[in-house]
Amino acid sequence: MGYEFDEQVEVRGADGEYAAELSPGWLVGGGLNGGYLLAVVGNALRASLPGKPDPLTISAYYLSASVPGPATVSVEVRRDGGSVATAAVDLRQGEEARLTALATYGDLGRLGDDVRTTAEEPVMPPPEECVSHAFAPEQVRRMAPMLQRFDMRFHPGQVGWAVGQPSGNGLLSAWFRLADGREPDPISLLMVVDALPPVTFDLGMPGWAPTLELTAHVRATPAPGWLKVRHATRNMAGGMFEEDCEVWDSAGRLVAQSRQLARQPRPAAD
Amino acid sequence: MGYEFDEQVEVRGADGEYAAELSPGWLVGGGLNGGYLLAVVGNALRASLPGKPDPLTISAYYLSASVPGPATVSVEVRRDGGSVATAAVDLRQGEEARLTALATYGDLGRLGDDVRTTAEEPVMPPPEECVSHAFAPEQVRRMAPMLQRFDMRFHPGQVGWAVGQPSGNGLLSAWFRLADGREPDPISLLMVVDALPPVTFDLGMPGWAPTLELTAHVRATPAPGWLKVRHATRNMAGGMFEEDCEVWDSAGRLVAQSRQLARQPRPAAD
Repeated sequence: MGYEFDEQVEVRGADGEYAAELSPGWLVGGGLNGGYLLAVVGNALRASLPGKPDPLTISAYYLSASVPGPATVSVEVRRDGGSVATAAVDLRQGEEARLTALATYGDLGRLGDDVRTTAEEPVMPPPEECVSHAFAPEQVRRMAPMLQRFDMRFHPGQVGWAVGQPSGNGLLSAWFRLADGREPDPISLLMVVDALPPVTFDLGMPGWAPTLELTAHVRATPAPGWLKVRHATRNMAGGMFEEDCEVWDSAGRLVAQSRQLARQPRPAAD
Repeated sequence: MGYEFDEQVEVRGADGEYAAELSPGWLVGGGLNGGYLLAVVGNALRASLPGKPDPLTISAYYLSASVPGPATVSVEVRRDGGSVATAAVDLRQGEEARLTALATYGDLGRLGDDVRTTAEEPVMPPPEECVSHAFAPEQVRRMAPMLQRFDMRFHPGQVGWAVGQPSGNGLLSAWFRLADGREPDPISLLMVVDALPPVTFDLGMPGWAPTLELTAHVRATPAPGWLKVRHATRNMAGGMFEEDCEVWDSAGRLVAQSRQLARQPRPAAD
């Protein structure tokens, strides 16, 4: 059986030129989710770099809002030598540049197995004791079809924002898995780092926060099962904020880290 | 009077094609400092984007070690509309690609003046009570001419690594200013985020840590005077580590944040 996520990020083509069909299933606010787009270009990079299947680091700059439908993805290899390769990738729809990115790929399976992580895994009640995003108000679900793609369970101590009582700490944590049971892999992690609501919800600013730039590091192949995802910000200023994301797998390993620079949200349209 | 940093990052040219002369004054270990190179391409981007003088975010991928001498810098604007512009930039020496980067520029002076920073400014004793990098052993200073470019004063509680007693916390803090008194600006901040020793010194791994990728966000124009710089890591694994840097200005504002993915250091050559 095929999983919907694999179909949604599929690219067809060769030699650095690919066609993709961007799915309406990832709409949120005014466009398609930035993490979904990152997974699409991440898949094209994988196709272009034989023997280096995994994103180690990728930096995407979002140029204009993507819409459901056809897109082209062009990959240009900048350096391929030794254990890693670096490439540039562009996603376009017609004449419109949507996203431009740089990435270094390698093989996570060939990295050393030393782990000296000082970060601490978020402490979460079990998923069945957390707050499902399925309880989101109808108007939120209508403007965010992407919410149907996954199962997301928020830490019950960090969902004051959902009932008009944001903590002001700039912190959100949730369990995460794809709705149809597809297990996480290094490509899906590129989506996961941008799947939660903006951390600004917890600062009393609900609404869509357009990403200017997002860089993700994939640090290990995730084990099957639920992921823990943690969003935090330390600096909202000048109409922008940085959002740090950590993704922990079911084995308790920090498998991805990302940081994005985003514009402060405007009030959500209803 | 001209300052040496301005001469060292100078680019000459027009229409997106520039020549630079990379300075031997920024040598460290096997090549030129990555932050210095970021400032050189940052200066070329500034020259290419009239009305948008300041880096808001820049992501550099390091392809091969740079050497002192001539370099070319090519800028290609990807989108220039509204208050920000995004461009790609490549730094080459002869046929060798050294660095490729993406950046979004704007005008820091036109951003809103709201500040809701939850990060806390590092607490440091005054510079005169901190440990100057001028006390570094002769062999370290010989392999790192860049140490002569600035005045750096380490937090006395975080320099155990200098006497063979790293804390294992993965944390370094220092006061920083350029040696000749040039005040910080958004371009020099691109160098500052990569000027301290790798945070792995504090994990008992002295030596040069090659950067794969570095993304810096410049969040405000720095006030004149000493900067406080803080390096930390949360995840060393698979032979790589992420290094987060924060730069605070003399007015107590968080003016730059960066994260890099680097390879674990090899032992320093003597």
